[in-house]
Amino acid sequence: MVIGRETMDNLLKIGNPKWKTSITKVETNRIITRGYPQEDLIGKISFPEMVYLLINGKLPSENESKMLEAVIVSFCDHGVTPPSTQAARLMASAGSQLNTCVSGGILAFGKHHAGALERSMKMFQEVIQRGVMGYLGPIESPEDLEEVAKVLVHELLNNNEKIPGFGHRYHEKDPRAPKLMELAQKYKCYGLHTQLAQAIQDALFDRKGINMNVDGANAGILSDLGFDWKIATGIFMVGRLPAMISHVYEEMTVESSFRKFFELEEIYYDGMKEINP
Amino acid sequence: MVIGRETMDNLLKIGNPKWKTSITKVETNRIITRGYPQEDLIGKISFPEMVYLLINGKLPSENESKMLEAVIVSFCDHGVTPPSTQAARLMASAGSQLNTCVSGGILAFGKHHAGALERSMKMFQEVIQRGVMGYLGPIESPEDLEEVAKVLVHELLNNNEKIPGFGHRYHEKDPRAPKLMELAQKYKCYGLHTQLAQAIQDALFDRKGINMNVDGANAGILSDLGFDWKIATGIFMVGRLPAMISHVYEEMTVESSFRKFFELEEIYYDGMKEINP
Amino acid sequence: MVIGRETMDNLLKIGNPKWKTSITKVETNRIITRGYPQEDLIGKISFPEMVYLLINGKLPSENESKMLEAVIVSFCDHGVTPPSTQAARLMASAGSQLNTCVSGGILAFGKHHAGALERSMKMFQEVIQRGVMGYLGPIESPEDLEEVAKVLVHELLNNNEKIPGFGHRYHEKDPRAPKLMELAQKYKCYGLHTQLAQAIQDALFDRKGINMNVDGANAGILSDLGFDWKIATGIFMVGRLPAMISHVYEEMTVESSFRKFFELEEIYYDGMKEINP
Amino acid sequence: MVIGRETMDNLLKIGNPKWKTSITKVETNRIITRGYPQEDLIGKISFPEMVYLLINGKLPSENESKMLEAVIVSFCDHGVTPPSTQAARLMASAGSQLNTCVSGGILAFGKHHAGALERSMKMFQEVIQRGVMGYLGPIESPEDLEEVAKVLVHELLNNNEKIPGFGHRYHEKDPRAPKLMELAQKYKCYGLHTQLAQAIQDALFDRKGINMNVDGANAGILSDLGFDWKIATGIFMVGRLPAMISHVYEEMTVESSFRKFFELEEIYYDGMKEINP
Repeated sequence: MVIGRETMDNLLKIGNPKWKTSITKVETNRIITRGYPQEDLIGKISFPEMVYLLINGKLPSENESKMLEAVIVSFCDHGVTPPSTQAARLMASAGSQLNTCVSGGILAFGKHHAGALERSMKMFQEVIQRGVMGYLGPIESPEDLEEVAKVLVHELLNNNEKIPGFGHRYHEKDPRAPKLMELAQKYKCYGLHTQLAQAIQDALFDRKGINMNVDGANAGILSDLGFDWKIATGIFMVGRLPAMISHVYEEMTVESSFRKFFELEEIYYDGMKEINP
Repeated sequence: MVIGRETMDNLLKIGNPKWKTSITKVETNRIITRGYPQEDLIGKISFPEMVYLLINGKLPSENESKMLEAVIVSFCDHGVTPPSTQAARLMASAGSQLNTCVSGGILAFGKHHAGALERSMKMFQEVIQRGVMGYLGPIESPEDLEEVAKVLVHELLNNNEKIPGFGHRYHEKDPRAPKLMELAQKYKCYGLHTQLAQAIQDALFDRKGINMNVDGANAGILSDLGFDWKIATGIFMVGRLPAMISHVYEEMTVESSFRKFFELEEIYYDGMKEINP
Repeated sequence: MVIGRETMDNLLKIGNPKWKTSITKVETNRIITRGYPQEDLIGKISFPEMVYLLINGKLPSENESKMLEAVIVSFCDHGVTPPSTQAARLMASAGSQLNTCVSGGILAFGKHHAGALERSMKMFQEVIQRGVMGYLGPIESPEDLEEVAKVLVHELLNNNEKIPGFGHRYHEKDPRAPKLMELAQKYKCYGLHTQLAQAIQDALFDRKGINMNVDGANAGILSDLGFDWKIATGIFMVGRLPAMISHVYEEMTVESSFRKFFELEEIYYDGMKEINP
Repeated sequence: MVIGRETMDNLLKIGNPKWKTSITKVETNRIITRGYPQEDLIGKISFPEMVYLLINGKLPSENESKMLEAVIVSFCDHGVTPPSTQAARLMASAGSQLNTCVSGGILAFGKHHAGALERSMKMFQEVIQRGVMGYLGPIESPEDLEEVAKVLVHELLNNNEKIPGFGHRYHEKDPRAPKLMELAQKYKCYGLHTQLAQAIQDALFDRKGINMNVDGANAGILSDLGFDWKIATGIFMVGRLPAMISHVYEEMTVESSFRKFFELEEIYYDGMKEINP
C-alpha cells in the first residue's frame, strides 16, 4: 500500500483532523469537558448541571438547574404502556443483553411516541420567532400571546391537525403538566415559550376541553431554558433511560424467560387483504 | 494542532492503514468482491452464491448453492409469533422508519430466540471435532455417531438442559425439518454434522418424543456446508430479513398508527414485589 | 385485578385480535406463507422469489425473479467505505455480538446513505404518476419521457438540488449501473420508470457530465417490478446484509479486539466553537 | 376468528395479565412510581434519587444520593475516543435521526467497551460473597481484604488475565478514580467492595505499576450502594447518554453531512487473507 499524495497532504495539513469537537478534550491523564477538568466537576456539579453543560456549553444558573432537574424527573416512566418499554421487555425476554434491550427501546421513539416533545418545541420556537402563518410578526411581548394562540389553535383545528403537547391517550388531565407549570413560575422559567404553552392550553380547552400534557409543559420550559428543538428527544431519553433499564432488569429477573406474550388465537390471519393497493 | 511524531510514523508505515479487508476492493470505477469485478457477478450468480462468496470467500458448487438457497428460504417467516417481529411492528406503529424498525427487530434475536441455531451449530461442530465430554475422540466415521448421540442426549437430559435445535414451542413436528433433511440427501450435503443431527433426533425421540426443528436441521446442514457456528445468526438474519421488512410495511400501511396493543387492564401492578431479593 | 367490561367485550369480539397479518399463518405443525405451506416452498422457489412473495404477496414471473436477483446481488458490498460498515465493525471491535453489530450498521442507513434509492424511487414513481411540477400530466407513453426528464433536470439543477440516483462520491462511472440497465432489457423489465431513469441520465450527462449510479438504475427497475418506494431501503438491506455480516465476522476473527481506530492526535479539540449560535 | 377456550380462560383468570410490573402503576390521571404519585416527586427529588428509586425500589439516603450523583457525573464523557461515540457520529453524518444515532452508540457498549464496569462489579461482588477461588470464605472484616486482593491479583496475573477496572488505554493515572475514592470516604460509602477495589489497586500497583480507573472505583462504590452487577451497564449508560446526545448534535450542526471519514488510501485490500482457516 502506498499512501496517496493528496491524502498525505491532507493528513499533514493543520486543521484537517479526522474528528473535531468542542465537548471534551482528552490528553494522557487529563479529561477536560467544556473547559473544566472532570475531576473538578465530579462531586461538585449535579447531573442536570452536567446535562446543561454538555449540551449548551456552559453551566446553568441555580434556578435553571433546578428547573431542568424537574423536567428530566418528570419524564421518568409511564409504566408498561409505551411501545418503547414493551419492545425493550420483549427483547429482554428473548434473552438479549441489557444495553441491547435499551437500545431497542430507544428505536421505538418514533414520530408518534416521544416525537410530540420535539414537534411541540419546534412549533413554540417557530411561533415565537416568526409568528403564526404570517399573520403576526415576531412575538415580543406577552400581550401578543393570547391572540397568537387563538389563531394557531383555530388554524390547526380547522386543518384537523393534532396539536403536539396537548391531550393524552391515557389521561384527561395529565398530573405532571400543572406541577411543571407551577415549578416554571417558582424557578422563574416562565418565558415566552412557556407562556405560549399556557395560552394554547387556554384556547384549546375553551374550544375542545383538551388539556396540556407533560410534553407541552416541558416543550415550553425547555425552550425557555435555551434548548434547541432538535435536541428534544435527547432530553426525553435522558429522563426515561433509568426506567427503561429498570423495566429490562425486572423482565430479566422476575419473569420467566422467552414467555409467550400472545397466544396463537390472538393473532388473526387476514388472508384476503390485498397488497400494494 | 500538531500531528505527533509517532502517529506520523504510523501513518507513513506501509501495512498500517486504518482498515484492512479481504472482502471488497474499491477503486474509482472498479469494485472487486472476493476477486471478481461486481459487474461480472450481477446477473450471473445467484443471491445464495453471493452469500457463500462473501462469507466463505469462494463460490460454492451447484449443489452447495441449492442447499444454501433452501436453508435461507426455510428461515423466511414465522408470522407474528416471534418477539423480533412483534418488536419491529411495535416500532412501526410508533412511527419509526423502516430501517429503524428492522434494526430493532434484529436486536430481539437474543439467547432464547434465534440463538438456538448458533448453539446447535456450536454443539455439532464441537462434538464432531472433539467428541462428547471426553468419552470419545474425534468423530471420523458415521459408525461412531449413533453412540455419540446417545451419550450426548443422556448427559444433557440428566443435567436438565435443553438440546438446541430440537423441540419447538409451537410445533410438535416442525414441517420444515424433514423437508430440509430430505434436500440434504438430494443435494449430497449429508455429512457428519447432518448425520449427527439425525442421530440426536433418533435418540431424543426414543427417550422423550421430541423432534428436530428447523434450527437443528439447518445447524447440521450449514456445518456441512462449511459455515463457522459464529456466523449462524447471520445466516438466519439473511433468511428472515425479507419477512421482517414485509411485516413492518404491513403495520405501516394496513394498521392505524400508534394503536394501543394493550389495554390498561391487561397490565398488572404488582406493588408488593421486592426488588434485588 | 379485575378485567374491565370494555376490554372484556373487546376481547370477545370477533375481528379485534391483537395482531392481524396477511403474510404468514401459524398453526400447530403448519406454517402457511402467502397461501403456500412453507415445506412446499423450501427447495422449490429461489430466495428472490421468496422476497417478492413476502413483500408483493404473489410469486413473480421467471423474468421478474431473475431481475430481482440481479438487483439484490448488485447491492452486495462497497468495501469498508460506507459508514454503516464502519459502524458495524467499530461495534465488533468493541466486543458486541454479531446481531448487535449488524443492527447497528443498519441504523447508519440515514438520509444520505442508502436513502438515495428511496428518494430516487419516490421521484420516479411520482413523476410517472403525476408528471413534473404540474407542467405535464401523467406519463403514459415513452414519447413524453425525454421532455419530462429535461424539465425535471432543469428544475432540480436550478434549485441546486442533487438528483438522487445519479453521481457517486467514489465513481465517475458506477460499473454496476450499465450492467443493470443491460439486464433490464434482457429480462424485459424496461418499463416507464427504467426508461425515465435512462432519460434523466441522458439529460443530466448532457448538462453536467454526471452518470447514473447503482441506486438510479435499481430505482427504475424496482419501480417497474412493482415495488412501492416505501420499501426501497428494505430491498437494499436484503442485498447488503450478507456483506455486513461478513465484515463483522472479519473484524471479529482477523483484527485484534478493541483496537484504536484513531490516535489522540487525529482528534482536534476545537474549544472556541460556540454552541447554539 | 374464534377465541380458543384455553385462551379465554387465561384472559379471565385474575393474575394472568399480559404484563406485570412493580415499577409504575398507570391509571387515568394518576401515575404512581414505586408508590409515589409522580407529581409529588417532580421538583422534590433529584435525578439520582429517581434513578435509585426506579432501580432499587426505594429512595436513597442523602449520602447515597450524593454518591450516586458523583458516579453518574463521572461517566459523563471521554471525547471522541470511544467507539460508541464514533459510531453515533458516523450515523449522524449519514443523516440518521438523533434517537437512532444514540441507539446505535449504545450498541457499541460491547465486552471490551463499557463491559469493564460490569465485569469489575461482578468480580467484587463474587469475591465479597464467596472469597477467592475457594481459598478464603466470605469476607466479613476489612482485615481479610488485603490478603484476598493479593491472592486475586496473583491468580489473575498468572493466568495472563486483565483485571477489569484497572489500567486505562489512554491514562496511566485516570484522574477520575482518586476523586471518586475521596468522595466515597466523604459520603461514607467506603464499604467492603470499595475497600476491595483499593486493596486490589495496592497489590496491582506493587506488582505492575497499574492504577485503578473510573470503572474500578465506581464498581466498588456502586456495589456498596447496593446495585446488582447485572445493572452496571445501565448506570454507565445513564451517565454517558447526555454526552452521546451532545456529540450527535455537534456532528449534525457543525460538520458537513455525509463527510468521508476515511480516504480510499486508508483502506487496505488484503486479498491474500485466507478465510475460515
